[in-house]
Amino acid sequence: MQKVEDYQREFIAYLEGFSKDREPASLYDPVNYILKLGGKRLRPVLTLMASEVYNCDYKKALDAALSIEVFHNFSLVHDDIMDDAPLRRGQETVHEKWDINTGILSGDAMLIMAYQLFENYDAMTFQALAKLFSKTALEVCEGQQYDIDFETRDDVTIAEYLKMIEYKTAVLVGAAMQMGAIVANASLEDQEGIYNFGKNLGIAFQLQDDYLDAFGDPKTFGKQVGGDIIENKKTYLYLKAIEFLSEEDKIQLQHLFGINPTDATDKITDVKRFFLSSGSADATKKEIEKYTNKAFDVLESLNISADKKAVLKTFGKELMNRNV
Amino acid sequence: MQKVEDYQREFIAYLEGFSKDREPASLYDPVNYILKLGGKRLRPVLTLMASEVYNCDYKKALDAALSIEVFHNFSLVHDDIMDDAPLRRGQETVHEKWDINTGILSGDAMLIMAYQLFENYDAMTFQALAKLFSKTALEVCEGQQYDIDFETRDDVTIAEYLKMIEYKTAVLVGAAMQMGAIVANASLEDQEGIYNFGKNLGIAFQLQDDYLDAFGDPKTFGKQVGGDIIENKKTYLYLKAIEFLSEEDKIQLQHLFGINPTDATDKITDVKRFFLSSGSADATKKEIEKYTNKAFDVLESLNISADKKAVLKTFGKELMNRNV
Repeated sequence: MQKVEDYQREFIAYLEGFSKDREPASLYDPVNYILKLGGKRLRPVLTLMASEVYNCDYKKALDAALSIEVFHNFSLVHDDIMDDAPLRRGQETVHEKWDINTGILSGDAMLIMAYQLFENYDAMTFQALAKLFSKTALEVCEGQQYDIDFETRDDVTIAEYLKMIEYKTAVLVGAAMQMGAIVANASLEDQEGIYNFGKNLGIAFQLQDDYLDAFGDPKTFGKQVGGDIIENKKTYLYLKAIEFLSEEDKIQLQHLFGINPTDATDKITDVKRFFLSSGSADATKKEIEKYTNKAFDVLESLNISADKKAVLKTFGKELMNRNV
Repeated sequence: MQKVEDYQREFIAYLEGFSKDREPASLYDPVNYILKLGGKRLRPVLTLMASEVYNCDYKKALDAALSIEVFHNFSLVHDDIMDDAPLRRGQETVHEKWDINTGILSGDAMLIMAYQLFENYDAMTFQALAKLFSKTALEVCEGQQYDIDFETRDDVTIAEYLKMIEYKTAVLVGAAMQMGAIVANASLEDQEGIYNFGKNLGIAFQLQDDYLDAFGDPKTFGKQVGGDIIENKKTYLYLKAIEFLSEEDKIQLQHLFGINPTDATDKITDVKRFFLSSGSADATKKEIEKYTNKAFDVLESLNISADKKAVLKTFGKELMNRNV
């Protein structure tokens, strides 16, 4: 197996040739724009790694990896419209740079192009990839819908929240790895195993994202620290705090999540104090650990060599330390 | 082969069971709403007919037919957002009844669900259906993009316009028929033949739609007569008029296509006069006839019995007389 940076480099080189010179430019320019905005390309790298874990030349998995990346970017384009987000990776979002209609239609085209990337595989592999893709893509839509629904609900349970992040974020990580296994002709049992490794790692990653949003180092987190608090997002931290706090403090925290001050500095400080005092910050750290360990337990049980387990474990650990 | 009304009834009964009780309701209610708004179900009926033309029980083609209908409705939901349309089949559009975000996300889910409907077919059939679907769906997106681009261009050629309606409308009619042939295991040659029959009929149908928008009977046309004129749509009628008119009249027509009066009665009368005096109305009728005959010529050349040709020809004629 190669190093993560090698997979990243190979993938980016492959991406260069995608969707070139297609007409009309007004439809495909935004596709190329969003795909070339950058990012760590973690999902496609996981597809390539998984294919090599199951003894296949990673080059055979490049189309599947690209499909995952195109789908991921499709979901970013449409989500950014829904969230009215002006920036993505420090650059203008597609609907800001062009307009909402362009964002809708170019996104639609990307979803279709993601399916087309399976067409070079044989019929059996094609069907397996497309089935997994559809199931996953629909779950991502459902996760996004739950996320939207939660904004206007004040009775969201921890179980519902975990299901939401599983669907919105984690299943795509699992599917990225399973696709590598499918291309490598791995058994259904092996496919399921690597899917569960990826899915649990994905849940841990998203919970950590919630945690770092409040307690991360502004220099390394990459996003605005306190962003979720400013937007009154009911993350794991918030839901656990509401569960743990006294009636009096709970009302105060709920009040803070009902205001939108121009300068949010005080609000962020106050909310973080509740996250710490309630024990919610600690509970979140424990939950991150729980899902990380679950992922590593699944990894231990896989039918692959100790060497390969070590590579995937290192990758998982670096991901959770955000070094990749 | 059965009667068109029988296929329609069977299809609608099959549609009833689709997407029932899926969660979250906020995502799937709009899917069920748009699918049950009605319409003549012409595309899925064509899939069922084509399967029987190639000697297959039409029941086997129900999933493929439903996929075509789900995709068609996906495109209506997203197009209605882009066109800011308040009504669809006399009822509120999805983004009006709910909101734009719901329209985007429910539409995305429908596009994915359309692919899932191929999953009950064997791997070879699945791949053939999904490939044709992706190619067609991408062309529909490209057609929609050309349509949008044409709004702000004043140098659209007739050839470009014909390509736009081919992509936006006609290829889906062709694909609907080819899918029936694929399910029936017809040869590639037969598939191509029935596709071309459908595609040419689709172009004739869309040109006729342009014609009827100006010259149709308000009682039978189903849409507001003059709607394209009110919206300054550069249809075949307009482009041909611009080609045929004297420099002076051309400037007048272009002026009429630059105004948006509250009461459009006079504008519609004046524009229609130019369509008639220029010879554009006649040229459009001839073009409709040309594509209808092209479709019937293709039909004649197909490797199917005279009986079946007669059924398809009757259907095509009724479609062009708008009796179905």
